[in-house]
Amino acid sequence: MAYLDHAATTPMRPEALETYIDCARHLGNASSLHRAGREARRRVEEARERLGAVLGAKPSEIVFTGSGTEANNLAIKGLHWARRESGRNRILSTSIEHHAVSDVVEWLRDHEQADVTTVGVDERAYIDVDSAVADIDNAPDEVTVVSTMSANNEVGTIQNLGPVIAAAGAHGIPVHADAVQAIGHVPMSFSDSGLTALSLSGHKLGGPTGCGVLLLKRATDITPLLHGGGQERDIRSSTLDVAGICALTKAADLAVTEQEAEERRLSALRDQLIERIQQIAPDAILNGDPVNRLPGNVHFSFPGCEGDALLMLLDAAGVECATGSACSAGVAQPSHVLLAMGRSEDTARSSLRFSLGWSTTQDDIDALAAALPDAVKRARSAGLS
Amino acid sequence: MAYLDHAATTPMRPEALETYIDCARHLGNASSLHRAGREARRRVEEARERLGAVLGAKPSEIVFTGSGTEANNLAIKGLHWARRESGRNRILSTSIEHHAVSDVVEWLRDHEQADVTTVGVDERAYIDVDSAVADIDNAPDEVTVVSTMSANNEVGTIQNLGPVIAAAGAHGIPVHADAVQAIGHVPMSFSDSGLTALSLSGHKLGGPTGCGVLLLKRATDITPLLHGGGQERDIRSSTLDVAGICALTKAADLAVTEQEAEERRLSALRDQLIERIQQIAPDAILNGDPVNRLPGNVHFSFPGCEGDALLMLLDAAGVECATGSACSAGVAQPSHVLLAMGRSEDTARSSLRFSLGWSTTQDDIDALAAALPDAVKRARSAGLS
Repeated sequence: MAYLDHAATTPMRPEALETYIDCARHLGNASSLHRAGREARRRVEEARERLGAVLGAKPSEIVFTGSGTEANNLAIKGLHWARRESGRNRILSTSIEHHAVSDVVEWLRDHEQADVTTVGVDERAYIDVDSAVADIDNAPDEVTVVSTMSANNEVGTIQNLGPVIAAAGAHGIPVHADAVQAIGHVPMSFSDSGLTALSLSGHKLGGPTGCGVLLLKRATDITPLLHGGGQERDIRSSTLDVAGICALTKAADLAVTEQEAEERRLSALRDQLIERIQQIAPDAILNGDPVNRLPGNVHFSFPGCEGDALLMLLDAAGVECATGSACSAGVAQPSHVLLAMGRSEDTARSSLRFSLGWSTTQDDIDALAAALPDAVKRARSAGLS
Repeated sequence: MAYLDHAATTPMRPEALETYIDCARHLGNASSLHRAGREARRRVEEARERLGAVLGAKPSEIVFTGSGTEANNLAIKGLHWARRESGRNRILSTSIEHHAVSDVVEWLRDHEQADVTTVGVDERAYIDVDSAVADIDNAPDEVTVVSTMSANNEVGTIQNLGPVIAAAGAHGIPVHADAVQAIGHVPMSFSDSGLTALSLSGHKLGGPTGCGVLLLKRATDITPLLHGGGQERDIRSSTLDVAGICALTKAADLAVTEQEAEERRLSALRDQLIERIQQIAPDAILNGDPVNRLPGNVHFSFPGCEGDALLMLLDAAGVECATGSACSAGVAQPSHVLLAMGRSEDTARSSLRFSLGWSTTQDDIDALAAALPDAVKRARSAGLS
C-alpha cells in the first residue's frame, strides 16, 4: 500500500518504538520513592530536558498529557476558566480549527456561557490577522484566551500568528496554538514564538498515540482538567507514562533534528505530486497556499467527484489518503475549513488530502500518480451523490 | 531487587508488551476510512468485544481513556455536570478515596459550588454503609452522583457496596466505583454489580500506563471532559490509542482469566508475609481487614518508626515498597486513609504498604523478611522525626 495519510497518523519510528520497549521492560512509578521509582523519574526528567531543548522550551514549561486533544482541551478550558471573571468571558478563535479546538470552544459557549469571537480566513485559509488584532484591541479586557493553529491540518496553510500574539501579549492575554501538524515539519521555538501555550501530539510525529504535550509558559494561571495525584506540577494528574514520554521525546528529537532535510525532501516530493495531479486532472483545484504550506501537504478538489468515492477507489488501487480530518471521517459533511475558505459545498465534498511523512518515498508518489487517472474517471462518472 | 509495590504499578506483562509492539508496527488511525484505518478499527473493536466479555460489560459500555485518573475525572465531573440542576448539586463520597477521586470531588466543591457529603469509615476502613444509605434516602433529589471505591488502595479493604448501589439505584442516582485496585484481583462483573460507572487503569493490571477504561452503562447522561473528534461515542475524544487499547485488553484478559488461581497464590504469600512480619515486629499493627483484603495487600504500622525512613532502609537492602499511594509520595503528610480509620498521626506516619502482584515469588517475601529486622531496628532507633 502507498500510505499518503501521515497527517492522520504517521508510523511510529523504529527508534521511538525501541525506546518504548526499553522503558516498558523497566519497572517503576515515577512518583515512587524507591530505586525503581527514582529510575523511572530520572528517565522522565531526562526526556523533559531533551524535549525542552528540541522545542526551544524550558523543561519546566513541559506538561505531558495523554494526547494532543487533551493538551488542547487543557489549554483552552484551563486558561478560560482561570481567567474568567465578571466582564471577561470571551474566547477568540478561528473558523478553520481542528475539532479538538473548535468543539472545546463550542462547548464552553453552549454549556458554560462563554462569548466567542470567530475570526474568518481568506480563500487560501489564512487567518484574517487584521481582524483578529482589531478584535483584541477593541475589547482587550473581555478576552480570556486566544486559541488558534500554527498550520492547518486539512489544507496545510502555515499561519503567521506574529501580529496576533503581539496584540494579545500587549494586553496580557494568553495565546494558545494547536501545533499538532506543525511540530517536526516547520521550524518552531516555543520561547521565540511568544506563545503562552502550544499543543503537540505524539503520533503525529512518529511517537506513540496515547501521549501528547502542552507547552505552557511558567507562572501561567491554568485550571487543571484532570485532578488527582498532582503529577506535572498539579496541572495534569495521572501516573506518568514513562515509556510513552520517552518514546514521544525520541520521536520529536528525530523529527526536529531532521526537520530541515525532511522539509527539503518532502517539499520536492509534494511539489512533484502537485504537478502530476494537475497534469492528470487539469481542472483540479489546489487548496491552501501553493507555496507556504506544510511540506507534506497536498490538498485538491476534484470537480464533479465525490471525495469519499475517490478515496475508496484509490484505496482499492492500493493508495491510502483522506477526505479531511480523520476525526471527522464517516461524517458525510463538507469540511468546515473549505467552507470557511469560500468553497461551495460541492467543491468541498470533492476534496482529497494526500499527506506525506518520514516514511514516504518516490514509490508512494508514483503509485498515486498511476492510480489517480482511473479513479478520477470512475468517480466523475459516478458524479456527486 | 524485591519489588513489593505492585499497587503503585505492576510490570507490563510480556504478552501485553508483545501486543503493543505488534499493533505499533501496524499503521492506521482507527477513524480513517482506508484499509489501514479499517484494520486499526477492527483491532479496537475486537479488543472492546474481548474486554467486555472479560469484565462482564457490553462492548458498548466501554469508554477507552488515557488513564485511570482520567476515567475517574470523567465519571465524577461528567455525571455531576450532566445531572446538576436547581436543587440537585450534591456529591456523595467517602473519607478514604484515592486522590484521583477525592481531589476531583474537592475541586467540584471549591470551584464549582458542589455540595459534598463525605461518608466515614470504621477502624478497618469499611465504609459506613448505613450512613451512606441514610444520606441517600434522606435527600435523594439532591444527589448528582455517588463516587467511591471497590477496594482501598492503601490498606486493601474490599468494600461491600451492594446496599449503597441499591439505595442509589432506587432513586435513579448513578454510582461510580474506582476499581483501579480491584480489577484483576477480585471477581468483578460490571453487569452484576449494578454500578453505573467503573474506572480501571492499564498499568495496575499489567498493561501500559497511558491507558484506562471507564465502564459506563448505556443511555447514561454524561458530560465529556475531552471534546474533539468525537471518538468513543462523543464521550471521550482523542485519536484511539490502538496499541495501548489492545495491550490493556490483553493484560486484563490474562489478569481476569488467572484471577482465581492468582488470588489463591497471592493470598497464601500475603498471609505468610503477615505472619512473618508479626513475628519480626510483634508490636506492628496490621491495618485493614485481616481477611477480607486484596490478595496482594499487606499494610502495617510499625510503632516508633518513620515510614519514609523504613522505606529507604528497605530500599537500600534491596526491597521496594511504599508508605502509601505513590501519587502522594514525597508529601510528608500522614495518610488521610489511616487518619479516617482513627489512627493517630504518629501511627499513620509509621506505616508501610507491601503489595504483591503477578510477578511476585517466594523469593520476594523471603527478601523482605530477611531485610526487615535490621531496618525496623534502625528506623526505631532513629525514631519519629
